[in-house]
Amino acid sequence: MSLKLTILGFNSAIPKKKSAPTAQLLEIANRHFLIDCGEGTQVQLRKAKAKFSKINHIFISHLHGDHVFGLIGLISTLQLLGKETPLWIFGPKGIKDFIMNQLRHTQSNCSFELSFKELESKHSELIFEDDKVKVFTIPLNHRIYTNGYLFKEKEKSRKLNIDAVKKHPEIETCDYQNLKNGRDFQLQNGEILSNQSLTFSPEKSLSYAFCSDTRYKPDIVPIIENVDLLYHEATFLEDLKEMADYTGHSTAKEAAIIARDANVGKLVLGHFSNRYKNPEILLEEAKLVFENTFIPKQLQIFEA
Amino acid sequence: MSLKLTILGFNSAIPKKKSAPTAQLLEIANRHFLIDCGEGTQVQLRKAKAKFSKINHIFISHLHGDHVFGLIGLISTLQLLGKETPLWIFGPKGIKDFIMNQLRHTQSNCSFELSFKELESKHSELIFEDDKVKVFTIPLNHRIYTNGYLFKEKEKSRKLNIDAVKKHPEIETCDYQNLKNGRDFQLQNGEILSNQSLTFSPEKSLSYAFCSDTRYKPDIVPIIENVDLLYHEATFLEDLKEMADYTGHSTAKEAAIIARDANVGKLVLGHFSNRYKNPEILLEEAKLVFENTFIPKQLQIFEA
Repeated sequence: MSLKLTILGFNSAIPKKKSAPTAQLLEIANRHFLIDCGEGTQVQLRKAKAKFSKINHIFISHLHGDHVFGLIGLISTLQLLGKETPLWIFGPKGIKDFIMNQLRHTQSNCSFELSFKELESKHSELIFEDDKVKVFTIPLNHRIYTNGYLFKEKEKSRKLNIDAVKKHPEIETCDYQNLKNGRDFQLQNGEILSNQSLTFSPEKSLSYAFCSDTRYKPDIVPIIENVDLLYHEATFLEDLKEMADYTGHSTAKEAAIIARDANVGKLVLGHFSNRYKNPEILLEEAKLVFENTFIPKQLQIFEA
Repeated sequence: MSLKLTILGFNSAIPKKKSAPTAQLLEIANRHFLIDCGEGTQVQLRKAKAKFSKINHIFISHLHGDHVFGLIGLISTLQLLGKETPLWIFGPKGIKDFIMNQLRHTQSNCSFELSFKELESKHSELIFEDDKVKVFTIPLNHRIYTNGYLFKEKEKSRKLNIDAVKKHPEIETCDYQNLKNGRDFQLQNGEILSNQSLTFSPEKSLSYAFCSDTRYKPDIVPIIENVDLLYHEATFLEDLKEMADYTGHSTAKEAAIIARDANVGKLVLGHFSNRYKNPEILLEEAKLVFENTFIPKQLQIFEA
């Protein structure tokens, strides 16, 4: 099972004719998580041929328009499409009133259960967990209360070494789950077969960290350490570091330092200031610090 | 001076990959009026090469998402673009809280004066007037409180018949405005020159009526009588009249009856149900009643 990230949009501030503000669709362990939802995200989802019905969890980093103005439209469309499964929205305190007030004025009755998990902690916390995945917040430093999100597959089951298992007729199908869970097997004669002799190591558990918008914040490094894929905003080049600090953003170099120090697998940059007509220049700056860096195109998919 | 209507979007309900929900830009007497503002309208305005700075008045028909979810994004963008002139928003009671609550949660400080005229009357009323244009509401009948809007150029000045005027040296430049306003001219010898002998009739004053969303409502006919251009929603064909009534919409035939009975110059249909893959079928139905009917393409311009 791979991890698949579709960049629905990565514009800063203003939607443009051919590019959308921040939104991403993360497919991890068969879950479909939407991250941020700028204006026009639902159209980007259509362009990406995403299945709307599979989106049951939306994570909003902060309540600036370019990260959230598409949320009410998406909720309305899910309603028109007859969504039945519950929808969970994670975001800063206030997001519930932000959405519910719009639903009230538009006299919309949700056909599905709409639940909010409002965040206000300044420390990383576990906000979602099921049998396959955990999601943690990554407290960021922007002009307004902001969280990034860390998505981690749980440790997977060990894989049966069928050839080895079949050599022991005493091992029955009903024992397989115990083996996958790492237990040894005791034969009737008392001999113990080690789990390692009967199974292979599990597939690697994959992880993704989303960090936008934020000033350079090195204390997130321990939280995102060793993630396979990191998205980190890079609004400015290093020569505008003062501007980055003032507006609550990072430079490409700073994003790369975070990636290097956290030993991530791959870094994707985004949220570039409109002043950079050709964002390759941001890529070049980052690559001097962290080679495995990429800048996305609209609807590009990154896998891990 | 012509009247120019740009159809920014005319989708019902859901934004699509290649077409946007309701929004129109009306240019009349050098004013730029935005009518409705579904999600993505600001991108449609860019595609239409509209000058954002000229938009100072926005008219919202009703608080359903496909007519209003793009408004907060447009306001935010105007702010980022450094708009300085005041922005007036006309719409149903509640629209102020709908917008201000979003601005509050996104911690946005408008760089310009943002004023609201909230509507709640069930009768047509004059809601805007300057030296060139008047705007009236057209009370409609939808599932939620809704107004259409009637935009009327005021009667224009008469035009000088320069050849006739020049024959009378006593008429000076400072007298021209009185002549344009329709006054006769008295020579020193007491002779009176009729205004008609010195001027031509004024250019026709143009008018446009926007009617969406609404059930068939024949009592709007006297309000929109003789308009040069009428946009009327036509969500369904006549064979789904019951559905139209139930959902608060009109059929193509009904839109055409309104156009015929109001003796309008030109009828443009829109807001077609997604069930009609080819909206030509709605055009055909309407043309049986009112020949001068059109269905728009994205960004099409209609003039009068």
